[in-house]
Amino acid sequence: MKTTITQIKKAYEAAPQLRDLNDKQLKKILLMLADELEARKKILLKANLADVEKQEEGNPRTDRLRLDDKRIKAIANSIRKVSRLPNPSGKTLEKRKLKNGLLLEKMAVPLGVVGAIYESRPNVTFDIAALCIRSGNACVLKGSSEADHSNQAAVKIIHKVLRENGLPAAVVTLLSSDRESVQDLFTATQYVDVLIPRGSDGLIRYVRQNSLVPVIETGAGVCHVYVEKKADIGKAVDIAVNAKVSRPSVCNAMDALLVDERIAPAFLKKLKPELEPYEVEIFADPASYKILKGYPFLRKAHAGDYGKEFLDLKCAVKVVKNSDDAIKHIRKYSTKHSEAIVTEDKKQAERFLHEIDAAAVYHNASTRFTDGEEFGLGAEIGISTQKLHARGPFALEKLVTEKWVIRGNGQVR
Amino acid sequence: MKTTITQIKKAYEAAPQLRDLNDKQLKKILLMLADELEARKKILLKANLADVEKQEEGNPRTDRLRLDDKRIKAIANSIRKVSRLPNPSGKTLEKRKLKNGLLLEKMAVPLGVVGAIYESRPNVTFDIAALCIRSGNACVLKGSSEADHSNQAAVKIIHKVLRENGLPAAVVTLLSSDRESVQDLFTATQYVDVLIPRGSDGLIRYVRQNSLVPVIETGAGVCHVYVEKKADIGKAVDIAVNAKVSRPSVCNAMDALLVDERIAPAFLKKLKPELEPYEVEIFADPASYKILKGYPFLRKAHAGDYGKEFLDLKCAVKVVKNSDDAIKHIRKYSTKHSEAIVTEDKKQAERFLHEIDAAAVYHNASTRFTDGEEFGLGAEIGISTQKLHARGPFALEKLVTEKWVIRGNGQVR
Repeated sequence: MKTTITQIKKAYEAAPQLRDLNDKQLKKILLMLADELEARKKILLKANLADVEKQEEGNPRTDRLRLDDKRIKAIANSIRKVSRLPNPSGKTLEKRKLKNGLLLEKMAVPLGVVGAIYESRPNVTFDIAALCIRSGNACVLKGSSEADHSNQAAVKIIHKVLRENGLPAAVVTLLSSDRESVQDLFTATQYVDVLIPRGSDGLIRYVRQNSLVPVIETGAGVCHVYVEKKADIGKAVDIAVNAKVSRPSVCNAMDALLVDERIAPAFLKKLKPELEPYEVEIFADPASYKILKGYPFLRKAHAGDYGKEFLDLKCAVKVVKNSDDAIKHIRKYSTKHSEAIVTEDKKQAERFLHEIDAAAVYHNASTRFTDGEEFGLGAEIGISTQKLHARGPFALEKLVTEKWVIRGNGQVR
Repeated sequence: MKTTITQIKKAYEAAPQLRDLNDKQLKKILLMLADELEARKKILLKANLADVEKQEEGNPRTDRLRLDDKRIKAIANSIRKVSRLPNPSGKTLEKRKLKNGLLLEKMAVPLGVVGAIYESRPNVTFDIAALCIRSGNACVLKGSSEADHSNQAAVKIIHKVLRENGLPAAVVTLLSSDRESVQDLFTATQYVDVLIPRGSDGLIRYVRQNSLVPVIETGAGVCHVYVEKKADIGKAVDIAVNAKVSRPSVCNAMDALLVDERIAPAFLKKLKPELEPYEVEIFADPASYKILKGYPFLRKAHAGDYGKEFLDLKCAVKVVKNSDDAIKHIRKYSTKHSEAIVTEDKKQAERFLHEIDAAAVYHNASTRFTDGEEFGLGAEIGISTQKLHARGPFALEKLVTEKWVIRGNGQVR
C-alpha cells in the first residue's frame, strides 16, 4: 500500500517537468518512442509470451492479450499518429479586459496526472502513455495482472525514452497489478486529477462506484436507427445493414431498428434479403414479425430485447406509429450514445436531431461513425456517454482543463 | 423512498418541455418569477418565520436562514440579472465537413436534469432554479429540513409561474428534506446528469463519497500571495490587505503570505500598520516573527498553520528564499483555488503564472477577484477546484453539455 501511494506522489511531483516541455519536444519523445518500440520489439514479444503462456487454453481473452509483429507495428504507427495531432494544451480559450483594467485569459492546460485502469490489452499502455505525453500530462497506469509482463516491458521501453529526453521515469508510472494498489488510486484525490476506466462494463461500474477521483465514464451503447415514413428506402437499407453488420461487437453498432408503420412493409421486405447473408438474428414485435415472416433468423421480441446492447449479429425491430412514438421509445431505452433517423423530410429530421438527447445524433448516416478518428479527433480513449467534460468520442483534445490567468496592475476589490 | 424516485423520474420526463422553449420564453419566465416573488413575499416571509422559530436561540445558522424584505428584493433582482445573461445552450462550438461529405456540428445543449443538495439558505432554491431555467435545464432540489417551510413556499411561487407558462411543475422539483431522499438522488444516474453540493466542506465530501451521479465539486480555498523581491511595495501592501480583510469568510481570501527574504523587512514593516486596525492575527515563521515584533496580534506559526483555510481575520506568513522556494511551498499547500504573485519583474511573473497549477493565478492583483460576477460570467454556483468540466467560477455557461449533430446523405462506414 505504502509503495503505491509513494509511486503516485512521485508521478505528481514529476508532472510539471513534462508539462513544461514545448510542443516540438513532446512530439520528438513520441517519435523516438515509436522507433524504440520497433527496435526492441523482441524483448516485448518475449515478455508477452510469458503472459500468454500463463493463460488457460481457449480463454477468449488470450487473443486480446497476444502481441505479434503486426500488432507492434500498429502500436508504433498509432504513436506516430498521436505525435501529429495538435497539442490541446496552451490554447487561449477566452481573453478580455475587464472594466477595472484586469486582463483575463482562460487557457487550456494539461490536467496534471491522468489515472487509467484497464484490462488485458497491452497496447492500452502505449495508447494512454502516448496521449498523455502529447498533451503534457503525467499518467499512472494500472493494468491487469494477466498482462503484467507485457506492461512491465512496455514501460521499460517508455522509461528509456523519457530518460534520454531528460525526464524522470515517474511521468509514466505503472502501478503494481495487485488489487490493493487500486484502493490507493481511488483515494488519491490530492495527486490524480481524473481516472479513466477502460474495459468491460463491470470494470467501469466498479470504478465509478469506488473512486473518489473524478471518473470519465465510457459506457454502453444501445443505439437506434429510426426509419421515418418519408425515408429513402435505399439509403435506409444501406444504413441499417451497415450499422448492424460492419462491426457488431462495438458500442456504436445498431441494436434496435424502429420503422414507421407507413413504410414498414416496403422497407422491411427490401431489408430482409440484405441481412440474411450475415445471418442477423431479428427479434421482431408482432407487426414486423408478420412482414418478416419467412426470414430464417426471425424470433419474437420479448420486452427485454429492447434496451439491450447485443454486441452481436442480433437486432430488435419495432414498428412505430410515427415520430412521436419513435422518440418516446428511444427516450425510454437509449443509453444516449448514438441515434439515427433516416428520412427525406427535413422537418422531421431536424425535430429528431433536436429532441433526441444523445452524444451523437444522425440524419441519413450510420451510427457507426461515432468514433474519434472518424470525427477527426484522433485516437479515442472511449465514447463518453456521460455529460460532464467529455461527451461522445473522448480523445486527446479533452485531456486538458482550464486555468484563468489574470494580469493586473495592483487591482484590489 | 418510492416517492422520491418517482419525483425524480417526473422531472426527467418533464425536462424536454423546458429545453424546447426559445430564449425569449425562458427570459420571460424568469422576469415573471421575479415579479411574482415580490408580489407574494408575505407568504414566503410567513413560511420563513416558521423555520426561524424552530431554531434554537443563538444558532449561528439562523441568520443564514432568515429572509426579510431586503433579502427578497435581492433575490428578485438576482433572478432578473440571470434573465439578462446569454443562454449558453444552442451555441455551435465546432462545425466542419468531413471528406465523406458528413456535416459534423458540435453544439452546446442543456445538461438535462441538474440535482442540487444544499444547506439552510433559502435563496439557493431561487438561485439554482433561475440558473437552470435560463439554460433550459430541469432541476431536482434537496434543501435542508431547517429551511423546509421556506423552500416549500419558494417552490409554490416557482410552480405558479411555470404553470402560467404552460410548463409542468416538475421541471423544478423539490424533494422531501428527509435523509432517505438523498440516497435516491445519489443513485439516480438514469435521470440526473450532474449533482451539485452547495454548502459546507462536510456536505461536499459526503456527496462526493456517496454519489454515483457525477458531482461538480466546489472546494476549499487555501490561497497564497507571494511578494517577490522586485515587488512594488505599495501594490503588495494593498493586495495583501485586500486579499485578507475585504471578506475573510470567503474561499478566495488569502490564507498565507509568502515574502522573498530580500524584500521582507521593508515590506512587512509597511504592512504591519495597515493590518493592525483590522486586528488580523498573524502566524509568523521565525524570520518574519523577528521583523513583525511589536505587532499586537502576532503568534508563532506551527506546521499546521500552513495549508489551513482560516475563513477569518487570520493569516500565516513565511519568508522564502526565492521564487523556487515560494512555488515549492505553494505546490505543497495549495488547494489550487487562487494564487497571486506581486512583482514588477515580468519574467518572474510569467514563470509563476505558468508553473502554478490553480483555477486562477494572478499577477499584481488580489485573489479576491475569483468570482463569477467579477469575471463577467454572472452569478456563480461556486468555485470549482476540480479539473473536469468546470474549473474556477462555476456559472451559467457551464450548465451545458455537448452534442454531436451529424447530417448525411446516406453515408455508411
